[in-house]
Amino acid sequence: MFDSMSNDGNNLAAAIVTTIRDVVGEGDKVLHEPVFRGNEWACLKECLDSGYVSSVGEFVSRFEEALQDYTGAAHAIAVVNGTEALHMALLLAGVEPNDEVLVPALSFIATANAVTYCGAVPHFVDSEGESLGIDAEKLRDYLASIARQQNGICLNRHTGRVIRALVPMHVFGHMCDMDALLAVAEEYGLVVVEDAAEALGSFRDGSHAGTRGLFGILSFNGNKILTTGGGGAILTNNATLATKARHLTTTAKLPHPWRYRHDAVGYNCRMPNINAALGYAQLEQLPVFVENKRKLFARYHDAFSSMPDVKILQEPAGCHSNYWLQTLMLAPDQAGQQETLLEYAQDQGLKLRPAWELLNHQTPYSDMPSMPTDVAEALQQRLINLPSGADLGGDHV
Amino acid sequence: MFDSMSNDGNNLAAAIVTTIRDVVGEGDKVLHEPVFRGNEWACLKECLDSGYVSSVGEFVSRFEEALQDYTGAAHAIAVVNGTEALHMALLLAGVEPNDEVLVPALSFIATANAVTYCGAVPHFVDSEGESLGIDAEKLRDYLASIARQQNGICLNRHTGRVIRALVPMHVFGHMCDMDALLAVAEEYGLVVVEDAAEALGSFRDGSHAGTRGLFGILSFNGNKILTTGGGGAILTNNATLATKARHLTTTAKLPHPWRYRHDAVGYNCRMPNINAALGYAQLEQLPVFVENKRKLFARYHDAFSSMPDVKILQEPAGCHSNYWLQTLMLAPDQAGQQETLLEYAQDQGLKLRPAWELLNHQTPYSDMPSMPTDVAEALQQRLINLPSGADLGGDHV
Repeated sequence: MFDSMSNDGNNLAAAIVTTIRDVVGEGDKVLHEPVFRGNEWACLKECLDSGYVSSVGEFVSRFEEALQDYTGAAHAIAVVNGTEALHMALLLAGVEPNDEVLVPALSFIATANAVTYCGAVPHFVDSEGESLGIDAEKLRDYLASIARQQNGICLNRHTGRVIRALVPMHVFGHMCDMDALLAVAEEYGLVVVEDAAEALGSFRDGSHAGTRGLFGILSFNGNKILTTGGGGAILTNNATLATKARHLTTTAKLPHPWRYRHDAVGYNCRMPNINAALGYAQLEQLPVFVENKRKLFARYHDAFSSMPDVKILQEPAGCHSNYWLQTLMLAPDQAGQQETLLEYAQDQGLKLRPAWELLNHQTPYSDMPSMPTDVAEALQQRLINLPSGADLGGDHV
Repeated sequence: MFDSMSNDGNNLAAAIVTTIRDVVGEGDKVLHEPVFRGNEWACLKECLDSGYVSSVGEFVSRFEEALQDYTGAAHAIAVVNGTEALHMALLLAGVEPNDEVLVPALSFIATANAVTYCGAVPHFVDSEGESLGIDAEKLRDYLASIARQQNGICLNRHTGRVIRALVPMHVFGHMCDMDALLAVAEEYGLVVVEDAAEALGSFRDGSHAGTRGLFGILSFNGNKILTTGGGGAILTNNATLATKARHLTTTAKLPHPWRYRHDAVGYNCRMPNINAALGYAQLEQLPVFVENKRKLFARYHDAFSSMPDVKILQEPAGCHSNYWLQTLMLAPDQAGQQETLLEYAQDQGLKLRPAWELLNHQTPYSDMPSMPTDVAEALQQRLINLPSGADLGGDHV
């Protein structure tokens, strides 16, 4: 818990920056940097020499199999990025134009954009402060007040639209309370698609992020725990849906040695082999990356333990988190110091970042349905991400 | 012109396969293979060693500048693939949900899919036999019969929808008659977006493919004249639209050192740096690839010159084509032999390919508006693509 003592803003900012410097050292520090210290060269060279750099290639299969082994998902389908992975997963989960999809207000905008690409309407829900994910109890109460069920379908009584799906997002790599969210989804007949873009390497009660919903999605963007340049993956345990995912993401072309026939409006979003080669080499090092990020957490945690106005966000009970982004939480009465700290740190060569502006306050989504998001709003003013590269936690630092 | 003499189907297939073998040699031959004989490895290694493999990186800028230099387009924006390039270009060109967009029936399905992603309706038009592109005269007559103009907007009198845009597609790298198509577009107030996915390296009357419409798009998929693994680019001469394209393709995030605010439903589709590194090295070799493909054309042309039932498709007048895919055209009375030839060649280890099934006959588009497409239908039954890799035309073959 936060101590009641507090500094004024500039003193607090200076104290925080000094403490961060104790952990990460001097020099310009960004939020996240990839680490290439494994077989990246060897795999890229092998891929180039094979002549197969595009969507048909052995590294795509090898990367997908390695993702399956690591996450425990029965099927992984590698695609061009996490946003497209979520878009495809929502379509395959049955999201139709004019449906509503429940998404957290506290998320990167891609979560809502993927819903919009389906022609559906994001409907924003509030978060809880331990995992930063969707608050299952609040969601249950909210649905009781606005929804009704009809033939197993959940309808929004106010808009008349079908509420089709629920998208838990595992913020900064910390996993939501999936047991509680799956229970609410089952009560209301909602399909669950996990946005695990930030959570490769995170487990809760033994299950990897993205493996408990009908689908989960991962991202391998340059700022993630491992990178393919740009990339993402769809996870599912359902063999039929995995086959459909492979079909939908390759222009829905029917198998034939020369005829070009397509049975649906498909997409062109499989991961190229060259990106999968990079990903395969990165995935070999994932356990080290996670371990280093957990060490970095411990260092930040120790360093800030004596500072009364802040705490370092810790993994929820039952979680083994990838600590993708290390997160400082300002005491409630220090929320007003967020901007001062960000400016001061920027001047000192430290690129810190607040959580995203809430999605229900963003220009393209401000008119969309939303439950009251008091907790997310309070959290947004208190959260600050710290330099989090896996190298910062490595033993050679 | 075709001679009136003809063989029966099996004899014709055997004669064609023998002639192809005279040009490409023995062994399994696919339709297209990339050639990596330049600085690919050096650029990939430089990219990896820089630590920047994702969407921010120097190779993206270098690749875009090199594309601008080569094509003469004022602006090139590299994205994840040609389909997304076309989708983005259509959105930026003002295509809105429920608009109609005129696209050739004779094209890869991505041309129509990109229209559908905008919530718009593809409206199919016929081709002419010289370039295989949209027939401008037929289009003018058709629009005269179905369209009316109102305040500079073109309306479909039958459906009541706005006909917003025209998408000429440069088939197999041969350029459409852009002068004629631009004239029709101007008469009817249509925005022109050129689908030049297949035409990097092709010029007509001195202008590179994709540089005469408001936008043009390129593809760098593994089967194209050069490859980035997967990738595409948006071309435009309009600086304002180029800025909008960069914004829309990077989640419409407003510039700010730490705040995440977005002013529109954006997309996440910029080309990763690692793919641009590959593309940059490939683009250095493009003049050689084009030259080799033109040599390969000359060899096929010579080899088939004495065969009465076929001809090799030649670039239209005024064009300097990249000859992306070499194309055999069966004489009209031999159209029925297409399947026999494809089967026979397949058995002989030659992967030939017919043109795509017409889009207005494909399952997802069979109910969409279409003009009569007699010419495209006849062409579809007569066109066969031949092994076309740049290496097949190189001097070392």
